[in-house]
Parts: sequence; C-alpha cells; structure tokens
Amino acid sequence: MTIAFIGLGLIGGSFAIDLRALPGAETFLGVDTNPEHAKRARELGLVDEVVELDEAMSRAETIILAIPVDAIAKLLPQLLDRVRPGQTILDLGSTKRAVTEAVTGHPNRDRYVAAHPMAGTENCGPDAALPGLFKGKVVLLCDLDKSAPDACRKALEIFHAVGLKFEFMTPEQHDSHAAFVSHLSHVVAYALSLAVQSEEKAGYAVPRLAGGGFASTVRLAKSNPEMWTPIFVQNADEVLPAIDAFLSEMQTFRDALAAHDAPRLDTLIRNANHIKELLR
Amino acid sequence: MTIAFIGLGLIGGSFAIDLRALPGAETFLGVDTNPEHAKRARELGLVDEVVELDEAMSRAETIILAIPVDAIAKLLPQLLDRVRPGQTILDLGSTKRAVTEAVTGHPNRDRYVAAHPMAGTENCGPDAALPGLFKGKVVLLCDLDKSAPDACRKALEIFHAVGLKFEFMTPEQHDSHAAFVSHLSHVVAYALSLAVQSEEKAGYAVPRLAGGGFASTVRLAKSNPEMWTPIFVQNADEVLPAIDAFLSEMQTFRDALAAHDAPRLDTLIRNANHIKELLR
Repeated sequence: MTIAFIGLGLIGGSFAIDLRALPGAETFLGVDTNPEHAKRARELGLVDEVVELDEAMSRAETIILAIPVDAIAKLLPQLLDRVRPGQTILDLGSTKRAVTEAVTGHPNRDRYVAAHPMAGTENCGPDAALPGLFKGKVVLLCDLDKSAPDACRKALEIFHAVGLKFEFMTPEQHDSHAAFVSHLSHVVAYALSLAVQSEEKAGYAVPRLAGGGFASTVRLAKSNPEMWTPIFVQNADEVLPAIDAFLSEMQTFRDALAAHDAPRLDTLIRNANHIKELLR
Repeated sequence: MTIAFIGLGLIGGSFAIDLRALPGAETFLGVDTNPEHAKRARELGLVDEVVELDEAMSRAETIILAIPVDAIAKLLPQLLDRVRPGQTILDLGSTKRAVTEAVTGHPNRDRYVAAHPMAGTENCGPDAALPGLFKGKVVLLCDLDKSAPDACRKALEIFHAVGLKFEFMTPEQHDSHAAFVSHLSHVVAYALSLAVQSEEKAGYAVPRLAGGGFASTVRLAKSNPEMWTPIFVQNADEVLPAIDAFLSEMQTFRDALAAHDAPRLDTLIRNANHIKELLR
C-alpha cells in the first residue's frame, strides 16, 4: 500500500514514523508546501519520496491530511473532486464542523473520514515528529455513517496501528468539547505568556524564578500561529463561550482574593482539585 | 549535626531525602501537626525520629520550616524568642514579605534565613517527597544582610547540598516576581479546572478528549488549599495586579477572536511564542 502524507510536521511526521509497522505499508509519499520541511522529512526518513500533490493523488491508496484546518477545508473538496474508487482520504485536524461542512453533499463524500487524534506537543515541523506520540491516546471519529465502509475500515486500521483508541462523536459535539478541553487551554497559555512578558522585569525574573509549575502551565504558548489561528477562527462560536466561562471563574477567584476571603478561596481551590478525578 | 524538619510534606520531605548526603548530617528530627504525616514520614525513613516542637528546638542545630506561609508567619517569632546562639532557622515558604515583616526588629532576627526554593509538584504529603527535586533549580534568598554570617553559611551549605543555585532579592522583589511567575499560574490553573468542570458534559469529555496539553495547563489545579490559600492572602497586593494583567491579555485575545481578526490573532500568538526564549 502507498500512503501519501499531506503535511510533514509534528502530526504527519509522527504518524509516518509509527505507520511503518502497519502490515502492507510499502511506500510513503510526502507533500509539503514548505520545501525545507519536505527536504527535512526526506532526510529524516519520515517519507520515501517527496512529490507534488497531483502525483500523490494518482499513486496513493490512502491520503492523510495533516495541515492547518483552514487549508484542510479548502483542499478537501478539491481532492474529493478527483478521488478514485477505493482511495481513502483522512484528515487529522483539530476542528471538525467547518471541515465536514465544506464537503457536505459532495458526490464523493464517502471517500473521506473525519478524525482528530487527541495528542501533540507544543513543537512543530518534521524535527518535532516523535515515535509513540499517539500510543494510548484517543482519536475522535466524526460522522462515520457518511464514510464508505471500506474507508472506515482503512481509517480504523491506520489509527489502531499507531496505538490510538476510538471515540465517536458528531462534528458539533467534537468542536464543543474540544473548545473547553483543548482550545481554551491554548488561549489561557497564550494570555499567561503575554501577561508575564508584560511585567517590567520578565526578562530578569522568568529565567531565574520559573519552576516546573510555570513551565507546565505556559507550555502550550509555544504552539505556532499557522496551526492555531485557523482553529480559533473556525471554532470561534464554541471557543468564545469557553473563554467566557473561564473569565467568569477568574473573576470569582479575583473577588474572593480582593476580599481576603480565605474560606471562599479554600472552597474554590477544593472544587478545582476535583480535576484529579476527571484526569485519572 | 541534628536537623529538625518542621513540616514533613512534599518540600520538607524532599529536602530530608537529599540532605542525607550533607557532610556532618547525623540525626533528622521531624515535627508535623498531622499525626498521619508524621507517622508516614518515619515509615518512609525521611526522618529518624518524630518529636514535639519543643524537643526539636532543644536538640537541633538547624531548623527547617516547610509549612504553610501563614503558619510560618505565626510560628517564626515564637521560635526566635527561644533560639539559642549557633542555632539557625530557615524557612522555605512561597512568600517572603509577610514572613520577614513578622520578625523585623526581633532581637534574634539574625538567626533566621529567608529562602524560597523554586521547585515543587502539584502533590502533597510525605508520600509526595522526591529525591532530586531541587537539583539545578533556583533558591531565592532574601535579606541575607539581616542574617548572621554563620547562619548564612549554614543555609548556603544546605541549599548547595540539594543542588540548588542561589539568587538574591529583597522580599518585595521576590513577592512581586513570584506573583507573576508562580502564583498567577496557580490561579489560572484553578480557574481553567473550574471552567472545564462547569461544562455540562465535562465528566464525559475530559477523560476522553484530554490530551497532554490540557493536562499540562491544568496540572497546578491539583495543588492543595492548605498551602495555597495563605500564599494568595499574604501576597494579595501583588497577585491582584498580576491577575489584572492576565485578564487584560485574555480580553485582547477574546476581542480579536470575536472579530475573527486572523492577522491580530497571529500577532498575539507570535508574541506569546517568545516565552520560548525566556524559558530556554
């Protein structure tokens, strides 16, 4: 089987590493609009050949889209226009509603499987690709009833091969949950980074005082805008209410602190501690 | 040398583990108001004997306070009342202004060294104690000119033995920087936890969707109120402006998102990415 990876960054590259173990996987083709990334992915052995998109579409049985979500929404209808019977197209983007809406009613919609593996790091590019990144994590699969049975089977084979567990949701459910559990964390980390940098002595204090706690909380603020701006814009309808829910909790905490209300702060912290049980 | 550890949780316990390597360290005494923690610290071998505070003060040459900052501010003047020449008292609390003010002008002030090791985890109690927790991290030392030279030397020996690097600040500088670099991260993590739990389907979504990113951002929300409420209350004058700086950045981000202003979001994210260089 020939697999084409469209996008050779952290996610596409990490998939390519672990998919070498897929029975029947023979040739890995790579496509990237960034020639440096394409060259580097070849050097690292993530893919066997770097090709143009047209060649990838004509040679590969399976096409995996691991590019920013605005690029997925634009490219996916064009790829479905020329998809062949038996070819399967997967996307791995962090939003699902805009992308699936972009192909609603397309005559070849059933060759496409919408997915979102819930794994990643704050780094990007082919050098960020890691073996085992997806092992034991969850992949959310959306609208499988709109994909052909053989396309679903191919997708599940691929996700199983890299160690992902399956969950099923509608695109709307996905985007609503992802806004709270993933996208909001990024907004918060970006704002924390900006606030700390706004302190006059940040350049002095951060390298000296930052322990593991700050580094952990702010880690996602290293995530790149090429990937994240399109996610926020596509999912603004869900991210804005998540931000507002968060701001409301911040204000409650601020009010308790301004009043030096220790019992109230205790209660808020005790409630926040319950996240332990949810994260297990 | 006999060392007494007042407080046998994460910080006191981790110090006890690594201080076994200190030349001349012989007997470790432990004091804890929680009898379960005291018993467990003895079982784990963190200390050699569990004793009452009075016995610890009469037998130990060095006394290390690793208890909540409100308890430090209350206890420290009482300990200085009865400190003997040659005895050294260190505190490891996360605020420094209220604690140092509590002993300003005390006739035995010079037997006390004010310190804050910038290391920890979200866990608590003797079972959370870890070897090597402080290795390569920074300890902030405040107002060393108010401590006797032999007390300073003893403190530096102890901090060096566990692998800490030294930085020097006034208590006011410490509390101002710590508000931004440490305390704010905790407020943000607590609010993120509360916001995500406020989502109707949190109990369903969090265990399924939470990848490493959310877990990292929310990690500090597991930190206990016994330790953190007193920190916030003591340092409210510095934490409130830090919260306001953060809320202002959140609002800027929210406004850009509500306007679907992709170039503005790009700029904000790019600026936030600079935290990479500060964290190194």
